[in-house]
Amino acid sequence: MGEFELLARIRERLPEPGSRLRVGSGDDAAVTVPGAATATSVDALVEGVHFRRRSSSLEQIGSKALAVALSDLAAMGAEPGEAYVVLGIPADLDEDGCLELLGGIEKVAAETGASLAGGDLTRSPSLTLAVTVVGHAERPEDFVTRAGARPGDALVVTGELGGASAGLLLLEQEAKSGAALVARQLEPRPRLQAGRSLAEAGATAMIDLSDGLGGDARHLAEASGVSLQIDAAALPLATGLAEVARAAGRDPLELAVSGGEDYELLAAIPADKLAAATAAVVEHGGITQIGAVGAGKGVEIRLPGGELLAAKGFDQLS
Amino acid sequence: MGEFELLARIRERLPEPGSRLRVGSGDDAAVTVPGAATATSVDALVEGVHFRRRSSSLEQIGSKALAVALSDLAAMGAEPGEAYVVLGIPADLDEDGCLELLGGIEKVAAETGASLAGGDLTRSPSLTLAVTVVGHAERPEDFVTRAGARPGDALVVTGELGGASAGLLLLEQEAKSGAALVARQLEPRPRLQAGRSLAEAGATAMIDLSDGLGGDARHLAEASGVSLQIDAAALPLATGLAEVARAAGRDPLELAVSGGEDYELLAAIPADKLAAATAAVVEHGGITQIGAVGAGKGVEIRLPGGELLAAKGFDQLS
Repeated sequence: MGEFELLARIRERLPEPGSRLRVGSGDDAAVTVPGAATATSVDALVEGVHFRRRSSSLEQIGSKALAVALSDLAAMGAEPGEAYVVLGIPADLDEDGCLELLGGIEKVAAETGASLAGGDLTRSPSLTLAVTVVGHAERPEDFVTRAGARPGDALVVTGELGGASAGLLLLEQEAKSGAALVARQLEPRPRLQAGRSLAEAGATAMIDLSDGLGGDARHLAEASGVSLQIDAAALPLATGLAEVARAAGRDPLELAVSGGEDYELLAAIPADKLAAATAAVVEHGGITQIGAVGAGKGVEIRLPGGELLAAKGFDQLS
Repeated sequence: MGEFELLARIRERLPEPGSRLRVGSGDDAAVTVPGAATATSVDALVEGVHFRRRSSSLEQIGSKALAVALSDLAAMGAEPGEAYVVLGIPADLDEDGCLELLGGIEKVAAETGASLAGGDLTRSPSLTLAVTVVGHAERPEDFVTRAGARPGDALVVTGELGGASAGLLLLEQEAKSGAALVARQLEPRPRLQAGRSLAEAGATAMIDLSDGLGGDARHLAEASGVSLQIDAAALPLATGLAEVARAAGRDPLELAVSGGEDYELLAAIPADKLAAATAAVVEHGGITQIGAVGAGKGVEIRLPGGELLAAKGFDQLS
C-alpha cells in the first residue's frame, strides 16, 4: 500500500474546507479560523489494549476513537471543531480496511459537526489510532473545567450508567442478546449537546465518565477542592444492566460505579440553576441528580441504609 | 507503572500555563487563546519504522518527534504554539525512560518557544509518539501553503541538504566519526525562524523537506500547478556529505535529493523579493537559490552539462 495513494483516496472522501477550516488535509498543516478560545484534547486507542478486531468492526473502532476524543470536548461544553487522526497501520490491514476505519470516523464527524482536518499515516506493529480534537468557544471562561465545583452545588449525571460495562460482559460471554448494551461499549457517542447545554445553564465543573463514576468523581473533587456525596440509590442504571450483572454474578452498582467507558457527563450545578439545567438537557439524554457537593475532600457513595459503597468490598475509586 | 502516577510526575515538570495557554494538562482538555488563525499538524514516530532505540537515545527520540512536527509549522511560517503528545509505552520502557523521552520533548519546546499543553499515555506493543502541534498567525493569509508558487519566482532552500542521509549511513556503518552529520539524522531542528522570515519576506509557497528534495519539490509543484527547474550544481550539499557518500559508493547528489529528513525548507519567492529574503534569513541558516518556478508541471533537476538528474538512474522523486 502506498502512503500517498491511500492519502489521495482519503482526501477524496474528506469534506471541503468549511467556515472555520480554510486549508484542509494535503498541505504541511491545516489552517483554521478558531473561536477566541479553543479546547484541545488527545486520545489514543491501541489494539489489544483498548479494542479487539475480533469483537469490533473497523467502522466501530474508527467511530469510537473519534467519539471518545470528542467526549472530552463535551465535558468542556465546547463547540466541536476539527479532528486530526494518526493511523498506525499494521501489515494485515489493507487499504479497504483503512477506508472502513475512516468511514467510522466520518460517521461520528457527520453526526457531531466535527471536521476531519488532517492526520498522519504510518506503518505500525499494531493498529493504533491517535485522535486530536479541537473545540471552540467565544471566551476562555465559557469552557467548564473540573475545578469550579462549590459546596452546595447539585451533582448530576447525564444519561445512564453501567451500560458500557454490561456490554463488555456480554461481548466476553459472546452473548447474542443485549445489542443496545453492546452498542454502549462499541459505539459510544459524546454528549456534546448536553455538555454545551449544561455549560450554558451554569455548570461549575464537569468531567466525562471514561474511567468510571468513582474514579472520575474523585478527579473532579480533587480539582475543585471539594467533597462529593453520592446517593447510590439515585444512580440512573442502564436498562438491562441488572439482568446482565445478575447473570454474571456481579453487583450492578459495581458496574455502574467502577466500570467506565459510559462517556456520560458528571457535572456540578448551583442548586438554583438545577431546574433550568434539567429542562435544557431533557432532549439530549437528560440529567439525574445523584448527590451534592460539600466542603472537605473525597468521594462518598452511600447505600440507602447509610452504608458506604466502598464497604461492600469492591473498589469504587478504580 | 501507574498511569496516574506517571502523569503526576510529568505534570510537575510541565511549564505553568502562559499567555496563550489558560488551562494545561490535567483537565479534560487544554484551553488556549489562539491567534486569529491557527495551523495544526500531526506527526507520528513508531519504533522500528522511524527510529531504533539501539541508535537513538530516548531524549533524541523525544526531541526528534517534536522537531519533526514543528517543521511542518516552520513550512507554514507559523509562530509555534502548543504541542500535544500521545505516548504509546511498551512493556520494556519504565517510568524513568518515559521521563527521558519527555526531557527531549521539553528541550525542543524550550528552544522553540512551544508549550507542551497536554497528551495521552497508553500501553502499546511498540514505542509510539504522536505529536500534534498548533501554530498561530494574525490572519489566515499570513500562512504560506504549498499552493502559491508562480512562474518567475525564485526557488530557494534553507541550510544544507543530504546531511541527514549521510548521518544515517554513518549510523548504519556504526562509524565513530561524523558527529555533526549523525546529529542531523538523530536531532533535527525545525527552521521556525527561517520559515517566519521567509513568510514575512513574501514567500509564495513553502514546504519542509521530510521526504527529500525530489519528492517534496513535486508536492509543491503539484499543489501550485507549476513546474520547478532545479540546478543540481547549486544545491547546498552538507559539509562532509561528499566524503561519506564516496566511502559508501553513493552519489552525494542522490543523498541530497532523495534522502529526506533534512527538515530544511523549500520556498518560492518572487524574484524582486529574493535579496530581502536572503538578508532576513542570513542569521537563521541562510538560503540558497537552487532554481526557478516555471509554467507547466513537473520537476526537473539538471546537471551542469544539461543532463537530467533522473537520467542517472536513481529515483529523484522518491
